[in-house]
Amino acid sequence: MTKYNPVTPQIADALRQIVGASNVILDEEKLEAYSHDETPKDQFSGMPEVIVTPTGTQQVADIMKLANAHLIPVTPRGAGSGLSGGAIPLHGGILMTINAIVADAGLFFAGYPMSLESCQIGGNIAENAGGGKAIKYGVTDRYITGMEVVTPTGDILKLGGKVVKDVSGYDLKRLYIGSEGTLGVVTSATIKLMPLPKAKTDLLVLFPDVQSAIEVVPMIVSKLGIVPTSVEFMDRLSVETSCKYLNEHLTYENCGSMLLIEVDGTTQDQVDGEAETIGDLCMENKAIEVYVADNYTTQERVWAVRRNIAEAFKLYSPHQSLEDIVVPIAQIPALMEEIAKLSAEFQISMPSYGHAGDGNLHTTLIKPPEMPLDQWYRLEDQVVRRLYAVVMALGGKLSGEHGIGIKRKDYYQEIADPREIALMRLLKKALDPNNILNPGKVFDLD
Amino acid sequence: MTKYNPVTPQIADALRQIVGASNVILDEEKLEAYSHDETPKDQFSGMPEVIVTPTGTQQVADIMKLANAHLIPVTPRGAGSGLSGGAIPLHGGILMTINAIVADAGLFFAGYPMSLESCQIGGNIAENAGGGKAIKYGVTDRYITGMEVVTPTGDILKLGGKVVKDVSGYDLKRLYIGSEGTLGVVTSATIKLMPLPKAKTDLLVLFPDVQSAIEVVPMIVSKLGIVPTSVEFMDRLSVETSCKYLNEHLTYENCGSMLLIEVDGTTQDQVDGEAETIGDLCMENKAIEVYVADNYTTQERVWAVRRNIAEAFKLYSPHQSLEDIVVPIAQIPALMEEIAKLSAEFQISMPSYGHAGDGNLHTTLIKPPEMPLDQWYRLEDQVVRRLYAVVMALGGKLSGEHGIGIKRKDYYQEIADPREIALMRLLKKALDPNNILNPGKVFDLD
Repeated sequence: MTKYNPVTPQIADALRQIVGASNVILDEEKLEAYSHDETPKDQFSGMPEVIVTPTGTQQVADIMKLANAHLIPVTPRGAGSGLSGGAIPLHGGILMTINAIVADAGLFFAGYPMSLESCQIGGNIAENAGGGKAIKYGVTDRYITGMEVVTPTGDILKLGGKVVKDVSGYDLKRLYIGSEGTLGVVTSATIKLMPLPKAKTDLLVLFPDVQSAIEVVPMIVSKLGIVPTSVEFMDRLSVETSCKYLNEHLTYENCGSMLLIEVDGTTQDQVDGEAETIGDLCMENKAIEVYVADNYTTQERVWAVRRNIAEAFKLYSPHQSLEDIVVPIAQIPALMEEIAKLSAEFQISMPSYGHAGDGNLHTTLIKPPEMPLDQWYRLEDQVVRRLYAVVMALGGKLSGEHGIGIKRKDYYQEIADPREIALMRLLKKALDPNNILNPGKVFDLD
Repeated sequence: MTKYNPVTPQIADALRQIVGASNVILDEEKLEAYSHDETPKDQFSGMPEVIVTPTGTQQVADIMKLANAHLIPVTPRGAGSGLSGGAIPLHGGILMTINAIVADAGLFFAGYPMSLESCQIGGNIAENAGGGKAIKYGVTDRYITGMEVVTPTGDILKLGGKVVKDVSGYDLKRLYIGSEGTLGVVTSATIKLMPLPKAKTDLLVLFPDVQSAIEVVPMIVSKLGIVPTSVEFMDRLSVETSCKYLNEHLTYENCGSMLLIEVDGTTQDQVDGEAETIGDLCMENKAIEVYVADNYTTQERVWAVRRNIAEAFKLYSPHQSLEDIVVPIAQIPALMEEIAKLSAEFQISMPSYGHAGDGNLHTTLIKPPEMPLDQWYRLEDQVVRRLYAVVMALGGKLSGEHGIGIKRKDYYQEIADPREIALMRLLKKALDPNNILNPGKVFDLD
């Protein structure tokens, strides 16, 4: 294992030389704000020794060269909106904040993460972020045609470009996308934007229970041959909690769960037709009611409820585990059944919501208010372990879009194929021989 | 550089033990058929010492273990329909044929390569094959959700699965996709199929010259906000040659080039509306005539012309260089201008056709009938070199979908960023320490 060196006054001076004195922060109080991301702070945190804010690719390269030469770990960080602890400095060292936003051009970045109001594109790429439109538009990787990346040894690579197809050599871009900042630091990206759809309609469909909603999901594509823009699932507790948080009043009498289904297209007629067909399918399959949100205001209202669920649950209970499990779409009904069993067996609330159209659910384990913290941590570990076993047995994976980071690292190393982990270690060692860049994330080296 | 060992009678016996005697071929005459692919045989060929046909993943793993232990190179091969020499055994050794086809399930594999009648899925994955629907549906990588891959050292990895989103660890699948059989042998794949579109219409649009057709291409997405299924370009020579080959009679009086534009969707009304809008745009931008092909027979006729261009040119002149250049879409007009200049300067015919909607053109250098072969090879090298310089200057790449293989290896190594090649070498060495698997493709190791 690499023995890291501390950030000495000499190193701090060298950093000032690279990025300018005002972009080097050593003040303890300020450092504290960067010691965690959106994962629960009491479980996942780590203090950087210094924060640097480079303002160009060459500066990033110079920092990496310095760090690599002096064996100082570097953690890259975008907006810090991550949900798996990927941007938390585990071994002190340098925390390097990268600020990059997508310029507005009347088109749209179809990656569309749920955290779109706060996240940054560098973090999106590092995590290969997904979101609410993935069923139709895919996730971040589909839209990154080029990038500039700084390697752990301080080389600058320009990969891809404005070409939309390219098989000239290995697709190195894809190695960096989703590598959680462990293989390189992305400093610039060429993003393919899509024309804004000319028409869209949202359906909010109420179901009597969880299973009936979930069972409709695979039918939409397989029976109707329609690929919606979004198929979001929310169970009753998720809807209630978010509505309370937003002071919003959706009708959900008798409702056990909801699907929020969006279709978009080139004409309103086409979109209305598809929405109607989907609505009919839902009504033939136990739906209680289908509400149509065909104007911007109503659409924003229902989407706000969906987008704010995680935030609402955090307010309701800061002690929780926000999961990101993903299974083959046909297995969602079986998954939901198993989650209900786990919830009953361990007597904890496990609301589920998320991207049902992708088989990706944000099941959340909520600490019962009266339970002592140490007991909760043990229980959480037990339930998560059981949940992951269920997910793997159904052909699923631990994370659909949030990443492994530190939150899921131990479980991942236990449950994933050891040959797969061995291969990742081989790649990490080849590209980052001193294990300088974001060490201790995704998997351990030794 | 690895010094390889020959396939001795003992090795042949060991191979027979693994795959059965009938699946080991040593007969020289049969070997010859596997010494080339669809690149010109007189320029690109290499004899295998033995052909083996494994019938399962474990057999592939056993072959790789044997080869790795005895330092014998292995070349994997699908249908041999490749266009860059990727499946040609450069150093003798074992040629391993993998037969895998996509089962028909009423859905469609939207990768849709032009060679769909002959290619195989293993080759599609190795090359990350593109095709005629990439502008809307992307290429092979978008549809591979899982795969079984045998590493050069004989380990079997099962990556991904039936999940459509997955950020659990590095995306190792994507490292193998498009690696041209140099990093692993794909023995099985989980492919996401798409619902067949309910309606489609093709437009065959005649333009007076090359530039006017090419200038319309970027407008379709940017001005109309419509993403067609296909935007294929054919210059007059390409159309004439293919029509002659097929004994087909398309109207192309006064026509300098054609666009074949397909739109698909969920209703015929929507599709007709989009087709009409595109047709109008073309007519406002110098098109001579727009023909609508809205039934299967007519659609097949026009697509057959497009699909058979490469085959037709091969018959017309076996000595040619079929290129696969790709540039940013906005740069196609500038590219076509430069190609016209090169054609004039070197006095050779350089017809162009291909996936204009992706900026990917199969410009072909045709040997003048009277030119001696040795002179042609020198000239070809000169023109290709100039063409690639133009492409790179426009922000493009050497290959959009055919790969580097051996055909483009030397040029690629000269023109690509040396840091990028260095990184690929690092990966290749990490994953294939003895350089056993498909050595000498894409780049040289030393």
